[in-house]
Amino acid sequence: MILESALLDVLPGQEVDFLAALAEARPLIAAQRGFRSLELRRCLDDGRTSRFLLQVGWESLEDHTDGFRRSPEYRRWRELLHHYYDPFPMVEHYGEPLISA
Amino acid sequence: MILESALLDVLPGQEVDFLAALAEARPLIAAQRGFRSLELRRCLDDGRTSRFLLQVGWESLEDHTDGFRRSPEYRRWRELLHHYYDPFPMVEHYGEPLISA
Repeated sequence: MILESALLDVLPGQEVDFLAALAEARPLIAAQRGFRSLELRRCLDDGRTSRFLLQVGWESLEDHTDGFRRSPEYRRWRELLHHYYDPFPMVEHYGEPLISA
Repeated sequence: MILESALLDVLPGQEVDFLAALAEARPLIAAQRGFRSLELRRCLDDGRTSRFLLQVGWESLEDHTDGFRRSPEYRRWRELLHHYYDPFPMVEHYGEPLISA
């Protein structure tokens, strides 16, 4: 499983609306081929509580980049979510764990 | 469980040495009070393959900030690892998942 990892800086004051929108958007991504898992966590550190960490597990990198991002569901995902972000998030992909404990 | 999340940019060419050093350092952190899990993954994206994502699960934020970072083992952790990073990494803490699938 590979991990899509995105740091999402949400417009201050819109965190609750963002959480509702992501809950609404969740089935769009969970139905994609290769989808394995999703976790959204909120930053605990001082001055960064509008930041969220979204991590999505995919069977392969292409399931995200060629699959979900080119799907009709992604257009709706963008409509629901992208207007909450400032700046637009950095999205990265990471391989299987090399070291774990 | 809270999650410590760090993006580690390792000096290009030193990735293999860094992995060996982290494997050596792993018992130092795994023995700490409140330690729950550790995963190190390598970035798959073009131009970012010297970047690693280190995520450590702790029972509480304080187990990391007041516990590990003030422990004698952390001094050895720093000696083993910190010279591999450029720039020095951003370390953040995230709460329990608010949304998951």
